Amino acid sequence: MTDYVYPGAEHTRFGHSLGVMQFASDIFDTLRSKDESVLMKALDARSDDLNVYRQRLRLAALLHDVGHAPFSHASEEILPTGITHELQTLEIIRSKYVADIIDACSATTGVKAEQVAKFFEPRTIDRKVLFLKPIIDGELDADKMDYLIRDSIFTGVHYGKFDHERLVASLCVIENSEQQGGMILGIEEGGVHALEALVLARYFMFTQVYFHRARRAYDMHLIGLLKDMGIKYPAEVEKYLEWDDRKVIDLASQHNDNRHARAIVERKHFKEALHTPDHTNGEQRRCFQFLWKDICKTFDSNKLFHDEAKKASHKFSRIDFFVRKTDGGLSKIEEMSKIVKDLAPIEQYRIYADQSIRSEVKEFCRVFCRDNGILF
Amino acid sequence: MTDYVYPGAEHTRFGHSLGVMQFASDIFDTLRSKDESVLMKALDARSDDLNVYRQRLRLAALLHDVGHAPFSHASEEILPTGITHELQTLEIIRSKYVADIIDACSATTGVKAEQVAKFFEPRTIDRKVLFLKPIIDGELDADKMDYLIRDSIFTGVHYGKFDHERLVASLCVIENSEQQGGMILGIEEGGVHALEALVLARYFMFTQVYFHRARRAYDMHLIGLLKDMGIKYPAEVEKYLEWDDRKVIDLASQHNDNRHARAIVERKHFKEALHTPDHTNGEQRRCFQFLWKDICKTFDSNKLFHDEAKKASHKFSRIDFFVRKTDGGLSKIEEMSKIVKDLAPIEQYRIYADQSIRSEVKEFCRVFCRDNGILF
Amino acid sequence: MTDYVYPGAEHTRFGHSLGVMQFASDIFDTLRSKDESVLMKALDARSDDLNVYRQRLRLAALLHDVGHAPFSHASEEILPTGITHELQTLEIIRSKYVADIIDACSATTGVKAEQVAKFFEPRTIDRKVLFLKPIIDGELDADKMDYLIRDSIFTGVHYGKFDHERLVASLCVIENSEQQGGMILGIEEGGVHALEALVLARYFMFTQVYFHRARRAYDMHLIGLLKDMGIKYPAEVEKYLEWDDRKVIDLASQHNDNRHARAIVERKHFKEALHTPDHTNGEQRRCFQFLWKDICKTFDSNKLFHDEAKKASHKFSRIDFFVRKTDGGLSKIEEMSKIVKDLAPIEQYRIYADQSIRSEVKEFCRVFCRDNGILF
Amino acid sequence: MTDYVYPGAEHTRFGHSLGVMQFASDIFDTLRSKDESVLMKALDARSDDLNVYRQRLRLAALLHDVGHAPFSHASEEILPTGITHELQTLEIIRSKYVADIIDACSATTGVKAEQVAKFFEPRTIDRKVLFLKPIIDGELDADKMDYLIRDSIFTGVHYGKFDHERLVASLCVIENSEQQGGMILGIEEGGVHALEALVLARYFMFTQVYFHRARRAYDMHLIGLLKDMGIKYPAEVEKYLEWDDRKVIDLASQHNDNRHARAIVERKHFKEALHTPDHTNGEQRRCFQFLWKDICKTFDSNKLFHDEAKKASHKFSRIDFFVRKTDGGLSKIEEMSKIVKDLAPIEQYRIYADQSIRSEVKEFCRVFCRDNGILF
Repeated sequence: MTDYVYPGAEHTRFGHSLGVMQFASDIFDTLRSKDESVLMKALDARSDDLNVYRQRLRLAALLHDVGHAPFSHASEEILPTGITHELQTLEIIRSKYVADIIDACSATTGVKAEQVAKFFEPRTIDRKVLFLKPIIDGELDADKMDYLIRDSIFTGVHYGKFDHERLVASLCVIENSEQQGGMILGIEEGGVHALEALVLARYFMFTQVYFHRARRAYDMHLIGLLKDMGIKYPAEVEKYLEWDDRKVIDLASQHNDNRHARAIVERKHFKEALHTPDHTNGEQRRCFQFLWKDICKTFDSNKLFHDEAKKASHKFSRIDFFVRKTDGGLSKIEEMSKIVKDLAPIEQYRIYADQSIRSEVKEFCRVFCRDNGILF
Repeated sequence: MTDYVYPGAEHTRFGHSLGVMQFASDIFDTLRSKDESVLMKALDARSDDLNVYRQRLRLAALLHDVGHAPFSHASEEILPTGITHELQTLEIIRSKYVADIIDACSATTGVKAEQVAKFFEPRTIDRKVLFLKPIIDGELDADKMDYLIRDSIFTGVHYGKFDHERLVASLCVIENSEQQGGMILGIEEGGVHALEALVLARYFMFTQVYFHRARRAYDMHLIGLLKDMGIKYPAEVEKYLEWDDRKVIDLASQHNDNRHARAIVERKHFKEALHTPDHTNGEQRRCFQFLWKDICKTFDSNKLFHDEAKKASHKFSRIDFFVRKTDGGLSKIEEMSKIVKDLAPIEQYRIYADQSIRSEVKEFCRVFCRDNGILF
Repeated sequence: MTDYVYPGAEHTRFGHSLGVMQFASDIFDTLRSKDESVLMKALDARSDDLNVYRQRLRLAALLHDVGHAPFSHASEEILPTGITHELQTLEIIRSKYVADIIDACSATTGVKAEQVAKFFEPRTIDRKVLFLKPIIDGELDADKMDYLIRDSIFTGVHYGKFDHERLVASLCVIENSEQQGGMILGIEEGGVHALEALVLARYFMFTQVYFHRARRAYDMHLIGLLKDMGIKYPAEVEKYLEWDDRKVIDLASQHNDNRHARAIVERKHFKEALHTPDHTNGEQRRCFQFLWKDICKTFDSNKLFHDEAKKASHKFSRIDFFVRKTDGGLSKIEEMSKIVKDLAPIEQYRIYADQSIRSEVKEFCRVFCRDNGILF
Repeated sequence: MTDYVYPGAEHTRFGHSLGVMQFASDIFDTLRSKDESVLMKALDARSDDLNVYRQRLRLAALLHDVGHAPFSHASEEILPTGITHELQTLEIIRSKYVADIIDACSATTGVKAEQVAKFFEPRTIDRKVLFLKPIIDGELDADKMDYLIRDSIFTGVHYGKFDHERLVASLCVIENSEQQGGMILGIEEGGVHALEALVLARYFMFTQVYFHRARRAYDMHLIGLLKDMGIKYPAEVEKYLEWDDRKVIDLASQHNDNRHARAIVERKHFKEALHTPDHTNGEQRRCFQFLWKDICKTFDSNKLFHDEAKKASHKFSRIDFFVRKTDGGLSKIEEMSKIVKDLAPIEQYRIYADQSIRSEVKEFCRVFCRDNGILF
């Protein structure tokens, strides 16, 4: 729903997928041009076979988002229990809609659909996939590089830009004996500041664009509408693919008796009545919860909702991501970058209200904060 | 169909319309800040009323393209006889879908729907409209400024860029006693090079993007499909508005027995077999016509089409557009700019063929050119 | 010396000064257009007088750096005891070279040289100056805005860019009863992320450009040369102004027997043998000091130097800088921004050695680190 | 003197030379990657030798402007009779200042100074040089690519930009049997619009920047000063190299009794009193000459000068520059591009006057034009 707030953001997942494919190719080519032999070792492949691995990676990059439901992240919870967009990606790649096309070209490309599908299996132990997948799905991947830059161009903001050319040029294969398999994607010391810039670009894009107050409101209305209609997306591929953005918008157009549908069609979303800081602390969180309970008791719950926007700007602490220093040694990224180490996750709470009661709700919040000595 | 060739070009007419509204406002504000009294004279209005004229202009800018059929220019010929997209714009603004909204806000804005509609009447003699309309629809208008820049950003090419800030800042009201009404939009001498740059940006965008060989092929397939289906867009507003891009693409998806539908859905357009230069001269045009006749006799006409891409980069010769020189005098733009004067219209012919016969057609063309001593 | 490392960085202090004047004007105009009456109150001035204060501010901005010695920061320690570049700025503005020109125009501008000089008096209590000076010399000032953007354009790096248009548009006058005088420059909540981006731009520009290893080496050679020559810049204005960059470079050209002069002229600086992280911690600092002592005992001190690069990316903790929140309340910037609060000062140590002994020094460092279990 | 008008334009010939070296390398690498064998044939070299030719080209590119006098083009006429900056380039490369350095490295680079000097010999018949030299000095060369882009960045204007990446990528080796030697630099059809954009960038940069009225005035004052002082630059290399921009500016500072020196130092140049159009036609030229004669008779010639600014935006008509068409055939660029064919040379005349008599001169011009029925 970003284009409801930033009108330029009319770009689609297709353009993004082409971009991820391009970045993935650039990363692969960088690794090869730096040291082909170490890449051959990581993939247990001969020089001649590298092009086939490159092609696998490109197809996985192109298809990495194919399983997303309409309006993607907003409607993840409308999926059947146990189903995620990653699992749907796997199913769709294996279906006739995709697998037949990949297999039909395999004489030329050397790639079978099943080899692409492997990238999306939940707990693969294929060492080649384990090496390649972080290029498109990791803490420093082609996916983030593309969406940050693409979204900042199309929304017209400055925040998502970073020196992607230097970042790609700094990536390298790290041989780490403690690591299973031994070879992983890492970065040279000279690229640490470019990596920090990407992490900060994410922080800014989340706080300024993805978690924009109006954008989040439309997401809430969308989910509200789907829930009110009793809709669950089907798990079965053929049926699932019938659901696209247009079908959801058509649904909204046809139900102008529903408050969420009306908010979407008439572009009159519930307005923010209160927000906590980008990095809400423990005490603020507890106070917000009390406040929200009180508000629900006092006002018509049909005219209200609240939002919890949470996101870590990175999760490097959960993985082993190494920097190769100028003196040849290895350090974890968090030891090399205080920005990576210190940047706190975003955690922001909001209360939204229908315009008819918004000023009352705001006044209620003001009094509550004053009486309880809270500063949001 | 531009995004079939330049994948970034997924932007819509809505974003463009917002942009034209912005540029129109900027132009109006420039004229006011330079000399409010001359603007008051041109509009026969008091200072307090200028904001209302500004608002009329903004609404006309926002709505200037509302009457376009799906895929706009490509499908103009599917409109009923005597109907143009300009006339449809007029009808839609007067319909309940638009007029009711404008009139509902008129207490605040001071603008009635009929005052906006006036901008689109074919032969208006309203002097205020005659003064304001060239701001959104003239040889140097907000429409061109926006689409050239917007399209160059979204396609990722460099060609459409020009110094739009300087251009807007150079616009002025010219008092020309020979002109009916006397006051018209013109430009100061210091902006002539920025105007030349806009004219050249148009030339480059047409030759490189809008007349791109693959883009034109998809346009031809689209029209071919609509004609094969026997479709004429309805003139009546309610029915007309049912036709959007999606409805046309759905039509293509449902008729995979039609060669044009297949070309669109499978993205396998007829390929270019021959093209004449950007500025085809008279002799080349005649030769092309002979060649095309011969080809039609020789090959299966279902596997062929030809294209005529024609566009003047400007039509300043048809209007009075004046430059106010640094010494205070007036000159016509064509006297001040050899580039404006000399830039020839684009005129390019192409032959397209289905892939199955393309190399035969190319060879046929080669032999024809050799035998007739023609160089395209 | 930045252009020895980034060849595009050939811009001068003059261009920078014009830029600071422009940013200062933009900030003043923003404050006036938001609320002229509050600005009049802050300056205890009538509406008509505001242009004179604007002009004072502009002249102070244009002249703020006029007292810098050649190669500015690098050679601050060559100034006589008790003299700083700020004091020299004051002297120069009061001298005939500047004061005569300002006073000659005062009939037109309404500004006397002494009113501009007031901006640079060490402990002024002039409330108008106290209000205006932070616009050109504070934690969020026209000086930083210009040099970060200018340097990033001219060096060709991405790091110094931030959304300066939004940042300027977010500045406001804050009425704070606890504050002496009551009125100070602050920022609206909507500009906090733009402020964070400026703080981070500074962090990146310092780590990547201003503290670049080769750039720092040239600074050290420059100071070394001036000290070897026994040079102290004169305090007296007329003599002081004779010293410009060219005179220092000429000095180097004439003393090719001096190792520092040769390093500069032949562009063969001492090379880095070891560096600590951007944010050296206490233990690392102590270890570095031991290491440096050992190295000095072991190697020829004429072929070595060390560097201490320290810089806080901001000093908001030392001043009262307020954010006006969307609900009207005030908060200190550090309460509103975890990035401002958490960003640690840069502290990095380096050892440089002449190329003839560099590999020995590197090996010595490696052994020292290994034996003492230190990781830099 | 461009930075007197555009303060950002403080960049130097050194940065430009690095840029030309880079573009020349990119062009060479493009030709090699497209078809190494045809490049080997053009240079009559084995694959292994190509790197040496690349290095020769790079050094020639780096040094191509080394013979320029201070303020380059402005002071060409202060050179001794028969001496040009190209001849001085040749002398300097052969002198100890350059040749010794190149020869000292020849064991590594494989390049001797004399092989670089060959690029600048007036009438060389060395076929390898004849093939390579147009890469740095031709109608479509690395020199123009760099200065147009560099100057537009540093002056802050938009005019000099074109799609240099596509342009470089479109260059190719053309085998033309009619040509002596047979192999020359040309362009593929797909690059014709990028070439047109470069030609137009030149046109705009000349009319807007290089021929800016104030910039030309400073050039005239500079030459006037040097002539008044009776200065001729020495032909002998050692003496010639003593003359740099600084020495000329110092000269101006020391002669504040000279009107030209004062104009430069105090930045008070003679002001434009009249200008003819960018493309003055024959009749306008004749009228201007009469007018100038009359003015010289009427006013104090010490307070006047006139300027003739002439430049062809390209000289493709003087050389054989071929386009390789998509069908494999060759055409001359002027047959393929109406813009190249039609773009007229710039020819503009100006009269400048000291501020004390400027308004009288303007009035004199106005009356002359009115009485003679001329429109400039």
